[in-house]
Amino acid sequence: MIRFNNDYNHGAVPEILEALAATNNDAYAGYGLDEWCDKAKEAIAQYLDEPDAAIHFLIGGTQVNFTAIIAALRPYQSVLCADSGHINVHETGAVENTGHKIEALPAVDGKITAEQIDRAAAAYEASPIPEHITQPKLVYISQPTEYGTIYSKAELADISAVCAKHGLFLFVDGARLGYALGSDENDVTLSDLASLTDMFTIGGTKCGALFGEALVISDPSLQPDFRSYIKQNGAMLAKGWLLGLQFYTLFKDGLYFRVTEGATKLGLQIRDAFHKKGIKSYIESPTNQQFVIVDKAQKATLAKDFIFEEELTLDSEHDVIRFCTGWNNTQDEVDALIRAIEAL
Amino acid sequence: MIRFNNDYNHGAVPEILEALAATNNDAYAGYGLDEWCDKAKEAIAQYLDEPDAAIHFLIGGTQVNFTAIIAALRPYQSVLCADSGHINVHETGAVENTGHKIEALPAVDGKITAEQIDRAAAAYEASPIPEHITQPKLVYISQPTEYGTIYSKAELADISAVCAKHGLFLFVDGARLGYALGSDENDVTLSDLASLTDMFTIGGTKCGALFGEALVISDPSLQPDFRSYIKQNGAMLAKGWLLGLQFYTLFKDGLYFRVTEGATKLGLQIRDAFHKKGIKSYIESPTNQQFVIVDKAQKATLAKDFIFEEELTLDSEHDVIRFCTGWNNTQDEVDALIRAIEAL
Amino acid sequence: MIRFNNDYNHGAVPEILEALAATNNDAYAGYGLDEWCDKAKEAIAQYLDEPDAAIHFLIGGTQVNFTAIIAALRPYQSVLCADSGHINVHETGAVENTGHKIEALPAVDGKITAEQIDRAAAAYEASPIPEHITQPKLVYISQPTEYGTIYSKAELADISAVCAKHGLFLFVDGARLGYALGSDENDVTLSDLASLTDMFTIGGTKCGALFGEALVISDPSLQPDFRSYIKQNGAMLAKGWLLGLQFYTLFKDGLYFRVTEGATKLGLQIRDAFHKKGIKSYIESPTNQQFVIVDKAQKATLAKDFIFEEELTLDSEHDVIRFCTGWNNTQDEVDALIRAIEAL
Amino acid sequence: MIRFNNDYNHGAVPEILEALAATNNDAYAGYGLDEWCDKAKEAIAQYLDEPDAAIHFLIGGTQVNFTAIIAALRPYQSVLCADSGHINVHETGAVENTGHKIEALPAVDGKITAEQIDRAAAAYEASPIPEHITQPKLVYISQPTEYGTIYSKAELADISAVCAKHGLFLFVDGARLGYALGSDENDVTLSDLASLTDMFTIGGTKCGALFGEALVISDPSLQPDFRSYIKQNGAMLAKGWLLGLQFYTLFKDGLYFRVTEGATKLGLQIRDAFHKKGIKSYIESPTNQQFVIVDKAQKATLAKDFIFEEELTLDSEHDVIRFCTGWNNTQDEVDALIRAIEAL
Repeated sequence: MIRFNNDYNHGAVPEILEALAATNNDAYAGYGLDEWCDKAKEAIAQYLDEPDAAIHFLIGGTQVNFTAIIAALRPYQSVLCADSGHINVHETGAVENTGHKIEALPAVDGKITAEQIDRAAAAYEASPIPEHITQPKLVYISQPTEYGTIYSKAELADISAVCAKHGLFLFVDGARLGYALGSDENDVTLSDLASLTDMFTIGGTKCGALFGEALVISDPSLQPDFRSYIKQNGAMLAKGWLLGLQFYTLFKDGLYFRVTEGATKLGLQIRDAFHKKGIKSYIESPTNQQFVIVDKAQKATLAKDFIFEEELTLDSEHDVIRFCTGWNNTQDEVDALIRAIEAL
Repeated sequence: MIRFNNDYNHGAVPEILEALAATNNDAYAGYGLDEWCDKAKEAIAQYLDEPDAAIHFLIGGTQVNFTAIIAALRPYQSVLCADSGHINVHETGAVENTGHKIEALPAVDGKITAEQIDRAAAAYEASPIPEHITQPKLVYISQPTEYGTIYSKAELADISAVCAKHGLFLFVDGARLGYALGSDENDVTLSDLASLTDMFTIGGTKCGALFGEALVISDPSLQPDFRSYIKQNGAMLAKGWLLGLQFYTLFKDGLYFRVTEGATKLGLQIRDAFHKKGIKSYIESPTNQQFVIVDKAQKATLAKDFIFEEELTLDSEHDVIRFCTGWNNTQDEVDALIRAIEAL
Repeated sequence: MIRFNNDYNHGAVPEILEALAATNNDAYAGYGLDEWCDKAKEAIAQYLDEPDAAIHFLIGGTQVNFTAIIAALRPYQSVLCADSGHINVHETGAVENTGHKIEALPAVDGKITAEQIDRAAAAYEASPIPEHITQPKLVYISQPTEYGTIYSKAELADISAVCAKHGLFLFVDGARLGYALGSDENDVTLSDLASLTDMFTIGGTKCGALFGEALVISDPSLQPDFRSYIKQNGAMLAKGWLLGLQFYTLFKDGLYFRVTEGATKLGLQIRDAFHKKGIKSYIESPTNQQFVIVDKAQKATLAKDFIFEEELTLDSEHDVIRFCTGWNNTQDEVDALIRAIEAL
Repeated sequence: MIRFNNDYNHGAVPEILEALAATNNDAYAGYGLDEWCDKAKEAIAQYLDEPDAAIHFLIGGTQVNFTAIIAALRPYQSVLCADSGHINVHETGAVENTGHKIEALPAVDGKITAEQIDRAAAAYEASPIPEHITQPKLVYISQPTEYGTIYSKAELADISAVCAKHGLFLFVDGARLGYALGSDENDVTLSDLASLTDMFTIGGTKCGALFGEALVISDPSLQPDFRSYIKQNGAMLAKGWLLGLQFYTLFKDGLYFRVTEGATKLGLQIRDAFHKKGIKSYIESPTNQQFVIVDKAQKATLAKDFIFEEELTLDSEHDVIRFCTGWNNTQDEVDALIRAIEAL
């Protein structure tokens, strides 16, 4: 069985295990106050053009999302996000658990628009008794989205502008950011993200690390005492250098970009094989997640040798299934899948 | 100017002010541990056929809603409610502020169905990894709804059954309950509510009291230590007898039913006048809230002598406005409005 | 039986019931956006010398305390207060329920000192890893304290200065403020409170109103969107004019001061009678609460005709009991108690 | 410089790195639903004699503490713990952040007694108005304590009995549990902990793992849906097998016990060297943490070659410093320290 069910089913790039082994006899200060975290921050910062951005390393995606959001909001403030957004559908209400309402906006292909945000913020501002409703204060989007789609630089700039107009924070969840950066269709760089958002994450867990998410905070107003939020929410790794070491390994010479770009290319090979076979995409994705519409027989055949994710039942005959490549997948594995698709 | 903008713009029925005056020189134990609260509970209990139901008196609607909900839920559990539900749109995210997600179901005329609830609960139960999503555990509906519509006994029984099937608590927000009870179309009694729900409220604020909401808890599992929730959430009135005295006054001889039934009848007179004039309802309501579709000129004319609520802009020509009668409105006031409608 | 158990066992001063009756046929805008609230704010503001202070009316003491505190703090920030402080011992953990730690400082006679606050704040500032502990950010004190003692203007100014030094908010709980203002030993005016604190409350519930606490917010940084906190926490009375009307009645011509000063004088008569009889105070209080040390026989004798509060068991022979006068007590009632004391 | 400042300044036992390397090319199901977690649970369960205990693997200490506590408590319930308890002084108010008050009991040598717990619980039960205070519902103790001391089996049994008497949950924080288990003075086994507590943790982070805390839940009432709490609080590692693999490695053949026992023995060598030199312990500890009282000159001398923790300033001449051995320390390192102590 070959796994294409997700991009977090393998350990880490070999370089990370080698780095762990090489440093295992060394002693470090705890809680992220070590030299590897410093070096990792420098390695990431070289891509950002935001010398004053703060960078923190947290452990997981749900954790970094709610920790960042709670630090940005007062109790009566809410989050605008796509109805398909990860925080809205897959994080056990972690944001609400911190006390904040999520206002879900209807997404198209996993994305929301500057205009939707503008309308939602304007509705609050126009309310004669705003104290009866929550105040939208932060926009959460994912790059790539939960459906593998990506925001263009123009779209992101529009969203950023409308956030500035209404005093909203813009937070981009980059749990799979590498796979967006590696897409042919992408024109958004890390530097763009740093300048257009208030906070964004660079996912490690799904992009070659054992675990870990880097949080970049460009907005100076969100930086003070952020480590208190990390600690209070159980997100401060005692042996913080394990995070620094991983991110340093991934970013010191661009390994992060290479492994994720490779996986995105493999994803597109899979997409093309399905299309050539006449099997359509449910959503057109330029990244490593491919959602295709198969009939029951096709699904059963593919399930013999491949693990993929059941996404949804489209109708009595058809299902949507997801093939997700990761930094760990090989050309051989994808070739095997392509042959199976061709044989359907 | 005659006010039809809401049902909480006047003080209280005169009997309540008289009772306050008559007892002002008496001394009582605090925090609801007084004889008036006891008598009020007895007066309400006579309508319930649930001798073991607990009854508490809280101060306001938002307060009683979130206090009841927080007492019913564990942190990972969520609320199912109509997207138009008061807790979802008009209480400043108070439920989320206590840590719980609201899953808004698309309502028709302010109502949701047993089938919708069944599907939402079944989706959770069918999830292969339910720990990634919140567990629906409580259904919140309003009787009458925010649009003045009412659930029939059959509908309520269906919802109650589906809640029992899935282990969900059923909570009915009766902020305007009197106006539903007074409707010709209503077949749901207080006794039905007590037996079909786990908790429901009997609104005082909008139904003749200065303030106060009675909470009836039928489900024994929700009763222990409920006073701790009341106190912790700032909902325990020091001079609790002020609540008991009001509810006793309203329920000892049916005053509550009489004043709200009268207001519902006045509301229907207004509705009929609009219909006779060819002005349609936005939603057909059998209670004291009437939502009608008027053009700009009609609205302007009515606004000269009457205060009503702007509900929404339907199109460039038409608005939906709400006329809401209350226990305090008189036949004379309604006659004046009817004449104005006829003259449009 | 004559009640001296607390100052909230009677309804309200007659002037308030008269005002309610006089306005019962009038209609008002809801949620505190009415003319009585405006007039009440003006009536209070005349004592403050802080033209930019915001004034809000909430319903109860626990409620106003946690609502004010949650508005002032970020999640990792904590409250410094006397270990005997009301929020620490008598509000069901309402502050912690909003997510904030209370750091209780050992009080003497219910009071804490500027030096204690200074040390606690300095300890945080000196911490090499402050992110592992909560940041003290708000000081809560009560005037009068839970033991009836009062802070002098000099003490309050010292506390205010140390708060300014460390960037702490100073919040004074004035649930019984009138009784402090009416004490011969008091030199702290409402104007002093407005200038020396960031927020303070003027209690109505225990000082002649049916219910209600006025919150004065001098600090401009705490004023924005405060109504959102009120609403979200269930503290916004639908018929808000009931609060405005009461505070206007109490403050328009000084009634608040007169009724509480009278009660404080009665409290001191009781104290003096005990002392003359050789019965000592547990804590020397210059206000309406008197804590005295009685033996079992004395307690039993007094309990025949008077209701008082059991405070604590001092030893096998002695108890501390509290006599608390209120705005409602009469000279006749106190004379009866004094005779009983003399006869012990 | 040789580090004795804490027991989490090195990576992991070599066997863990080897296991990571050996499995790095394998694919696993996420979120702890993998075979390594299963095997790790079996490996731990063999020590427990509680076949129905649930075992979960979380990432860090603060995280596992507040996640376990939030799952056990309703909002009005509080935690009893030593004033020196980790949750009270070193976790940024994480427990309060989830809404629960901590009632700190004065500890002696880091420990609290069954009698203290009995009194605190009885005080609540005896309260005439318990709804005004929080209900103690969970007792948190640490084994070993923050001062390195340990509870005997008799003490633990007494605490367990008093918890049962009052319906309190007993939760033992075993962040350093291995070092207690390895002490000559210890008579509490893992099996004892499983039977005497409702929940306890087995720390990995400080006991040889890269990271990870095992939570053992013996009480069946605390087991349902616990994974929802893990996920909601950001404590569910995507690549959960990394936790399972580490705990399996540590427990499959007793490696956990060996490495921590060794460190405890080294700690006692250090203690004995200080005592022989006439340098006293601040607290007598039978585990790997040693708190000694040194003068300024002694401290300065030791600081030349060794890193230790500054605990507190005892007086103008003396400080308390902590030497903490870990699973990683060698006899050579300790010998060097002993020579330095002898030379003081």
